[in-house]
Amino acid sequence: MFASETEFVRWLARQSSRRAGGLRLGIGDDAALVMARPGNEIILTTDLSIERVHFLPQLHPARAVGHRALARSLSDIAAMGGIPRYALISLAISRSTMKIWLKEFYAGVSALARRFAVTVVGGDTAIVNGATTVDVTVVGEAPKGKAILRSGARPGDQIFVSGRLGLSALGLQTIQAGAGRLTAAGTSSKLPDALRAHFYPEPRCKLGRFLSENKLASALIDLSDGLSTDLTRLCAASHVGAIIKAGRIPVPSQGSRGNLSNDDALNLALNGGEDYELLFAVRPRNVTKLPREFLGVPLNHIGEVRPGKKIRLSVPGGKEVPLKPAGYDHFRKLIRDLHPRRRQSR
Amino acid sequence: MFASETEFVRWLARQSSRRAGGLRLGIGDDAALVMARPGNEIILTTDLSIERVHFLPQLHPARAVGHRALARSLSDIAAMGGIPRYALISLAISRSTMKIWLKEFYAGVSALARRFAVTVVGGDTAIVNGATTVDVTVVGEAPKGKAILRSGARPGDQIFVSGRLGLSALGLQTIQAGAGRLTAAGTSSKLPDALRAHFYPEPRCKLGRFLSENKLASALIDLSDGLSTDLTRLCAASHVGAIIKAGRIPVPSQGSRGNLSNDDALNLALNGGEDYELLFAVRPRNVTKLPREFLGVPLNHIGEVRPGKKIRLSVPGGKEVPLKPAGYDHFRKLIRDLHPRRRQSR
Repeated sequence: MFASETEFVRWLARQSSRRAGGLRLGIGDDAALVMARPGNEIILTTDLSIERVHFLPQLHPARAVGHRALARSLSDIAAMGGIPRYALISLAISRSTMKIWLKEFYAGVSALARRFAVTVVGGDTAIVNGATTVDVTVVGEAPKGKAILRSGARPGDQIFVSGRLGLSALGLQTIQAGAGRLTAAGTSSKLPDALRAHFYPEPRCKLGRFLSENKLASALIDLSDGLSTDLTRLCAASHVGAIIKAGRIPVPSQGSRGNLSNDDALNLALNGGEDYELLFAVRPRNVTKLPREFLGVPLNHIGEVRPGKKIRLSVPGGKEVPLKPAGYDHFRKLIRDLHPRRRQSR
Repeated sequence: MFASETEFVRWLARQSSRRAGGLRLGIGDDAALVMARPGNEIILTTDLSIERVHFLPQLHPARAVGHRALARSLSDIAAMGGIPRYALISLAISRSTMKIWLKEFYAGVSALARRFAVTVVGGDTAIVNGATTVDVTVVGEAPKGKAILRSGARPGDQIFVSGRLGLSALGLQTIQAGAGRLTAAGTSSKLPDALRAHFYPEPRCKLGRFLSENKLASALIDLSDGLSTDLTRLCAASHVGAIIKAGRIPVPSQGSRGNLSNDDALNLALNGGEDYELLFAVRPRNVTKLPREFLGVPLNHIGEVRPGKKIRLSVPGGKEVPLKPAGYDHFRKLIRDLHPRRRQSR
């Protein structure tokens, strides 16, 4: 570990990329100073990553923990159609943490930050007896009036999703089964799809920006807690319902899912969470303007916005069943843990 | 506790003040949207408040925990001479937390935010098995080029400090001795000085702004970890030394300190921490422009910036002794805990 907080902050300041446009003052003073580009709105988001909640020290390499912690907030910026600019990293470090873990953690943060031209401008640090807790705040920007909210969907809009869903949850299952630990330490490009999706999710900032610049999406959210939960959130914010076709949902491919059944694959795609793909609504007149893929990422047409409040899943044979939000919810999980018997009744 | 994260976020959105100038979108979407005032730089700061590190559940009422968590970041904005505008509150809530604790916590945050015209625009929440951890990010602003850094002090500058130092540490001693628990739950205005300083510290944002608008301070830092530590930081950033007169340091008054000796009072003022007063350097030509107090808060002249690196304390009789940074340092505390024998040698 470092001998003093001052030494740690100095080391940290060296890790950050030198200078970014708009940065006046980075790590080392009471606060950071940045300039917003004229005519831009500022986007603010923050996300926790907590040991034994969001990551497990025995399963997740420090580099992946750093990558994922920043990726969560970058994905929120993508979900506004914005451009990420600056990050603040708060870190409550478990007493048992080794210096090498910290270095690897920041290597994961820095590599992703560099690729997205994000500058780490500040943060806070403490040593704790309990679990390591990371909080990442990202400041982004979007031209005034161009950010895409969750609330703009209207009946008749078509629903699209980027990438494949359920891969991250599949990756977690794989490493929990013991197969992923060693390979994960390697570079992300050599990992199997599901492990890469879980350890090194790719925030869809360029796609979000493409959608906002071309006014292609009427509503936009990122899939952090699972399609069923996040679609419910988008619909609630827009005061609409939706129908999703099960057969159109991009589940993990046969090659990546081993002996997983079709139903299990669909369940992962609906409720797995941590996909960090984008879910968005498109006005009917704009559907033909949308490419079938963007920078190699498929954009799948999975359903339609409807009037009312009901969110339904169309299953093979044409039957429609209610789609309940069954993704990750910290509070519901708490209630389940406290009252396990109530679980069946939900 | 709340039945779901959605319910909690809705409740939270209701707690936040309705609309602030520049706020486009608050709690409830993927991120918040704000506008910077033209010609202003954006100030970014974040501070952790952790159970059993920064607060003790048996000693600190939830309302004070909320107040202190936000005050830490507001004080950083004050230390730049800026105006706080928006806050993001990340909260990892211990599983054993009661809903009433959360409500009181947010009441403490909200009351302070309202007084400082700060809007809570977002955050993140998780339930954890371990300690409750709060991370508060505050976004502020200052006219371009007007922010005051730590690094502008020059030899010959005079050193000033606002308010009284050591009161917060004295308050902590008082409540640890068992006298403060019940009174603390009352309104902050009726508390004895030391308890109020500890439970409800007042960030000096107006003073910071006064210093920056009138270009009165060449360097500025807030006293979060103790005068000895924070003066060392200001001097290191400015590449200067300093001499501080022990007799000029505003220690807790006789009335508030009970049977504390003069030496103990000086020790609290030098190393106690959590004062959230401002420490600043003033060019000799500006000293006469500085009022003796600002909005009822005394501004005490305690020393002078010197060439070199040494930081010294002038004690009664005129002798000068080295002033070592002995305030709070998370990393040094760790090393002490791990190697208690090394403590004596420091």
